[in-house]
Amino acid sequence: MSCSSCWHTSIWKMLLAAMCLALLGCLQAQELKGHVSIILLGATGDLAKKYLWQGLFQLYLDEAGKGHSFSFHGAALTAPQQGQKLMDKALESLSCPKDLVPSRCDELKGQFLQLSQYRQLKTVEDYQTLNKDIETQVQQDGLWEAGRIFYFSVPPFAYADIARNINSSCRPHPGAWLRVVFEKPFGHDHLSAQQLASELGSFFQEEEMYRVDHYLGKQAVAQILPFRDQNRKALDGLWNRHHVERVEIILKETIDAEGRASFYEEYGVIRDTLQNHLTEILTLVAMELPLNISSSAAVLQHKLQAFQALRGLQKSSAILGQYQAYSGQVRRELQKPDGFQSLTPTFAGVLVHIDNLRWEGVPFILMSGKALDERVGYVRIVFKNRAYCTQSERHWVPEQSRCLPQQIIFYIGHGELGHPAILVSRNLFKPSLPTQSWEEVQDQPGLHLFGRPLSDYYAYRPVREQDAYSTLLSHIFHCRKESFITTENLLASWVFWTPLLDSLAFEVPRPYPGGAENGQLLDFEFSGGQLTFSQQQLEVLIPDLVSVPKPSDFQVLGAQYRQSPLITAWPEELISKLASDIEAAAVQAVRLFGKFHLALSGGSSPIALFQQLATGHYSFPWAHTHLWLVDERCVPLSDPDSNFQGLQAHLLQHVRVPYYNIHPMPVHLHQRLCAEEDQGAQTYASEISALVANSSFDLVLLGMGTDGHTASLFPQSPTGLDGDQLVVLTESPFRPHQRMSLSLPLINRAKKVAVLVMGRTKREITTLVSRVGHEPKKWPISGVVPLSGQLIWYMDYEAFLG
Amino acid sequence: MSCSSCWHTSIWKMLLAAMCLALLGCLQAQELKGHVSIILLGATGDLAKKYLWQGLFQLYLDEAGKGHSFSFHGAALTAPQQGQKLMDKALESLSCPKDLVPSRCDELKGQFLQLSQYRQLKTVEDYQTLNKDIETQVQQDGLWEAGRIFYFSVPPFAYADIARNINSSCRPHPGAWLRVVFEKPFGHDHLSAQQLASELGSFFQEEEMYRVDHYLGKQAVAQILPFRDQNRKALDGLWNRHHVERVEIILKETIDAEGRASFYEEYGVIRDTLQNHLTEILTLVAMELPLNISSSAAVLQHKLQAFQALRGLQKSSAILGQYQAYSGQVRRELQKPDGFQSLTPTFAGVLVHIDNLRWEGVPFILMSGKALDERVGYVRIVFKNRAYCTQSERHWVPEQSRCLPQQIIFYIGHGELGHPAILVSRNLFKPSLPTQSWEEVQDQPGLHLFGRPLSDYYAYRPVREQDAYSTLLSHIFHCRKESFITTENLLASWVFWTPLLDSLAFEVPRPYPGGAENGQLLDFEFSGGQLTFSQQQLEVLIPDLVSVPKPSDFQVLGAQYRQSPLITAWPEELISKLASDIEAAAVQAVRLFGKFHLALSGGSSPIALFQQLATGHYSFPWAHTHLWLVDERCVPLSDPDSNFQGLQAHLLQHVRVPYYNIHPMPVHLHQRLCAEEDQGAQTYASEISALVANSSFDLVLLGMGTDGHTASLFPQSPTGLDGDQLVVLTESPFRPHQRMSLSLPLINRAKKVAVLVMGRTKREITTLVSRVGHEPKKWPISGVVPLSGQLIWYMDYEAFLG
Repeated sequence: MSCSSCWHTSIWKMLLAAMCLALLGCLQAQELKGHVSIILLGATGDLAKKYLWQGLFQLYLDEAGKGHSFSFHGAALTAPQQGQKLMDKALESLSCPKDLVPSRCDELKGQFLQLSQYRQLKTVEDYQTLNKDIETQVQQDGLWEAGRIFYFSVPPFAYADIARNINSSCRPHPGAWLRVVFEKPFGHDHLSAQQLASELGSFFQEEEMYRVDHYLGKQAVAQILPFRDQNRKALDGLWNRHHVERVEIILKETIDAEGRASFYEEYGVIRDTLQNHLTEILTLVAMELPLNISSSAAVLQHKLQAFQALRGLQKSSAILGQYQAYSGQVRRELQKPDGFQSLTPTFAGVLVHIDNLRWEGVPFILMSGKALDERVGYVRIVFKNRAYCTQSERHWVPEQSRCLPQQIIFYIGHGELGHPAILVSRNLFKPSLPTQSWEEVQDQPGLHLFGRPLSDYYAYRPVREQDAYSTLLSHIFHCRKESFITTENLLASWVFWTPLLDSLAFEVPRPYPGGAENGQLLDFEFSGGQLTFSQQQLEVLIPDLVSVPKPSDFQVLGAQYRQSPLITAWPEELISKLASDIEAAAVQAVRLFGKFHLALSGGSSPIALFQQLATGHYSFPWAHTHLWLVDERCVPLSDPDSNFQGLQAHLLQHVRVPYYNIHPMPVHLHQRLCAEEDQGAQTYASEISALVANSSFDLVLLGMGTDGHTASLFPQSPTGLDGDQLVVLTESPFRPHQRMSLSLPLINRAKKVAVLVMGRTKREITTLVSRVGHEPKKWPISGVVPLSGQLIWYMDYEAFLG
Repeated sequence: MSCSSCWHTSIWKMLLAAMCLALLGCLQAQELKGHVSIILLGATGDLAKKYLWQGLFQLYLDEAGKGHSFSFHGAALTAPQQGQKLMDKALESLSCPKDLVPSRCDELKGQFLQLSQYRQLKTVEDYQTLNKDIETQVQQDGLWEAGRIFYFSVPPFAYADIARNINSSCRPHPGAWLRVVFEKPFGHDHLSAQQLASELGSFFQEEEMYRVDHYLGKQAVAQILPFRDQNRKALDGLWNRHHVERVEIILKETIDAEGRASFYEEYGVIRDTLQNHLTEILTLVAMELPLNISSSAAVLQHKLQAFQALRGLQKSSAILGQYQAYSGQVRRELQKPDGFQSLTPTFAGVLVHIDNLRWEGVPFILMSGKALDERVGYVRIVFKNRAYCTQSERHWVPEQSRCLPQQIIFYIGHGELGHPAILVSRNLFKPSLPTQSWEEVQDQPGLHLFGRPLSDYYAYRPVREQDAYSTLLSHIFHCRKESFITTENLLASWVFWTPLLDSLAFEVPRPYPGGAENGQLLDFEFSGGQLTFSQQQLEVLIPDLVSVPKPSDFQVLGAQYRQSPLITAWPEELISKLASDIEAAAVQAVRLFGKFHLALSGGSSPIALFQQLATGHYSFPWAHTHLWLVDERCVPLSDPDSNFQGLQAHLLQHVRVPYYNIHPMPVHLHQRLCAEEDQGAQTYASEISALVANSSFDLVLLGMGTDGHTASLFPQSPTGLDGDQLVVLTESPFRPHQRMSLSLPLINRAKKVAVLVMGRTKREITTLVSRVGHEPKKWPISGVVPLSGQLIWYMDYEAFLG
């Protein structure tokens, strides 16, 4: 549909144009030229002075000749005269691009200043006046209004009022567009971000909002998707877990938080840079590449898919640091008492894993910090060495040898190179880049980057370096929404980060001196999904915490509980001991009988056990192990509440148990859940009778509930505590109520029964059960008494000692 | 049991001693001192001259003072006088260890020469005489006989005769031991090795045979297991797929095969060094470490387990080369005609994968060749970089930084270091080595090994360098069988290598100039289990082969077959196209309906498809895909013949299809296979009806048999070709006869049906079926006519064009 016939200036045709515009997509709308008003809220603030006015000037330089007319309104709470003075000062330092002759620059700058006015925006009336002024001016000049941009360069607490005023009194007439631009922070965690988003959502449409993450305007970052797109052919086979060894997304600063402590103390490094900048970069690298990268919708959809594939972060996924001067700065700037020690991290390393087929197993390392040894930002994709070079190293040709490092680096800026760049190892492939905007970097002999001389790379830099805000203002003007953070995107990021932030809230960051002095203090390593500092910490700065006993202070203790062996230890050792015992039982059973029948309980405690078995036990005879369920909730196996799901997610996906050795409980037959007439319990019992000699499992793993239940046998259960049935349907006091469970008589036929009890909440029942006799009706766990097998209790110190 | 009471010299006590000995294990037997006769067969040959006499002299030096008495019999076919002369010449050059004073050396050498005699061994009588002479001598000297060692340093064709003679005429009296020592080659492939083994087995007990792989006597190789044992604690967490990036097992020679062409032409590099030396080293590195490494039985058992875990080699697992002068040498030495071109490889790289939990995914690179740029042998274990170093590289401390390479190298010898060594990166751990036999290497500034200066390693060398044969002769004497190749071990190795050797038999090796001239010509790379040379070959030396068309000469062609679309291509492209089409169907189905129902056939053609889907399709929506079987053989699902097994091995193990989306056919119910009364077919039909809307699969993948069958619907089948049944039991003309199959009516309800036909054997039926009408009784495939869905034929050129 073409709307060129709308292009007239008489009133009724303007109306027609407006109607046309309302029907058009964003990009086509740009083609219709009209008047654009840009209102910079916070026009005399730091960001405005440093970047935004310059960005607006650049926008004017780029766009003014193309048909649109512009007016720029600097706004703030300050009274008109004083405000105008402050704004004039900010505008004085505007500079022109190098390729513009000074006289022409002066001329354009003059025009820009003339179009720019200060305006106090405080009351509803101020907004009404602004609205009227714009309409009047447009009419006077015989123009029609294309749209308005409101740039919120103000603290978030001011957002709501301004938004309400714009929405009620300063929207352009229908048909012209409204764009509102916000600066982070966008909330403090998932909840606050949601609140802020819903508040703004009550005033603006999603398509009207532009949330700025200025890293998306950095030239090397903005080039990630185009680079992936233009080098599809070379990257297609490489951009995956088979070829990528790791991805590093790094933002190092030399400055510290001095002067900004009041902001920083509330946010810390993860909220300041990881949740936003580094996460956005992560998604640009990791997302599936849309066929058409200029479709904002497709880009955003693929980004959201990438978020969904992120593996949840654990406390152990991160390491934290704090430069030593920080707490003092906080004390001074926030008037804290002398003894005050901040827990806010100024340095963090986080290990991110992506659970999809493309990236499974590839570590994404995110690191950011203040007071480090250099200022530099980069994304580095390191490829696996897949070559063997037959000749002695002495004969390798650096530019060709496939045995030397292969990497792609998006160099955001600063550092030893001093400018943005894209580097591709010459032994990888020759990249294609848009030659009008990227040019080859001159070699700088002696300069080594990422282990190799600069000459080992195809290296490109922007022909014209451009500030991120200039880029983003142009994108706002051109309606390129893929450079901004949609509400969905923002919330997805908070969903990812909030649990980590919560779990780290009381973590003591490692102190570091700052600068080159840091030495190797902040180096870190990963293993099995966990991050740790490479160097042991030598001193603990907060002496109060020293007295807490550490796992290594204790050993695994053996004792008795209910006349049976008791193993007690800190959780990690306990799980490790239990896993070893299970492996030993498995090895023995397979040696003697050729197979091992293991019945496992669901719940949270076994998850750590599953993980330990999956990652630490290479000789476990999985191929000869049969897995049975001790109990199951009456939900589909694919339901997240299903015990089988936990088993699948934490164990089955990581080891190779043959399909036909896996025996989920048949709780879902004929599209019904645990219907008596489907005889699921009987079916499971027959399966056990058929496959397990004497229906005697080699090992049954049980837990114990705070009410003394075990398996899904609850106090007063009419079934399963005695009798002939091997498998029974039971009722739980907790949702979902319906359960299927092995019966006590079946459990007691096992050769080994292990009861795993963990956590402080179990303390009371542990004490109680230690004293009661054989009363399965009251405390089903007390009925666990193997006929001829062995019972062992595994309790952590918290469950046992409280 | 102590046998010290046996230690007497009178005749009857000797008999008692002999009986005691027969009751004792090998090691204890050593403690009883007596007379040992060592017969070196081939005493005047190259190996004897170069290593064996020296090794025997060393044995004498080490053992003579410890109670045993010795006699050495050099034997050959040569007549006594001339033989003695030749042997004396070989003995002249014997040398003493450096730490022995020359006078003492001369004295001991004199003793050794006096104990060494030449002896012609040709006829049975010669052996009888030898036997008698030994007995007489022992008696004369008032000794008793401890045992005899026969060292076969003769060509394999002579083995049988000698073995027969020893067995019939030269065994020591009962109670004394016999040890026979063989040198490779031990056969040419699995069959010939089996024949040789069974022949030797008819003369000797397994415990009497010592097959030498002299690499097991090299000091660095012999130290692999002790090193793993003594550094268990440090290696325990490291020696696995989570930490090891790759293992390189390398044997480079500068010499070529000149002068040995007659041997080499028959064997080639794989049989000469990979099947034996490099494979033995591989098992030492990869095997699970026995608790007690001095138990030969345990070591051998673990070795055999490692062999079992080796993934079968494909033709594409190897690359081959041949130095350019080779064919000329063969022509000269074997009097071949002028145009003769040998196909025997003189260089090979092979990628080995080990399918167990410890090593899955870790590439083991084996490489060996002649006429290369340097002589060196090593095993290099490269660890993954698991660290991020926060400081700029300039500040890294090489000896500590975890970001620099971490590796362990067993340096077998030669190369730039010039002696055996064990190197461990200092940033890894400080290894423990037996200080009496290994000492630290002095730094050699300027010497770089494996990318790092020598000073970056903990580096150890043997205190005393020892020749491999000396070591092995000592092990033979001390009955240390773990340093030798048992029959089981040998055959396991041939089982592994023979299929590769067969598949490479007519492969043209890449020619290389030899020495440093090779440049990067022999560098190679791996990807997805395949090895390829890094550089494209620029010229083909054997012009006859040029005219064979290559896949890249063709494109995927679209046409019609039986009025339906036909895709035809070379196998690789065909599979790739089919996989893409399936993914596209899956993506579409999941977008529209939330799930994708895919029914797959068994057999060999789909395996390539499964592999392609598993490794090349990262966006495939597996989590929403349901997998069904088109047909199944009535065998347990765990039977290797089961179609489900193929699906599990080649697809399910590599992607993440949820357990409950996998629908194997219920051919095995109530411990019976496809019993009518178990209603398996009906059960499967109900499952389909319940889960698949309208019982209409999104995609059904079929094949076509040479008899025109498809699924398990064979010509003249009474069931499944029409009627209402969705799933049927059928009879196949091939074993196993009983089958379960989707019926034609069910197949024809599918939205898409893909028929994959590959290979020359399908040519005839393809032509035939192209001409017939709708005659499912005769040709079931002709009944595949989707009601409203789409049928596409995928045929490779061989099936389509013949």
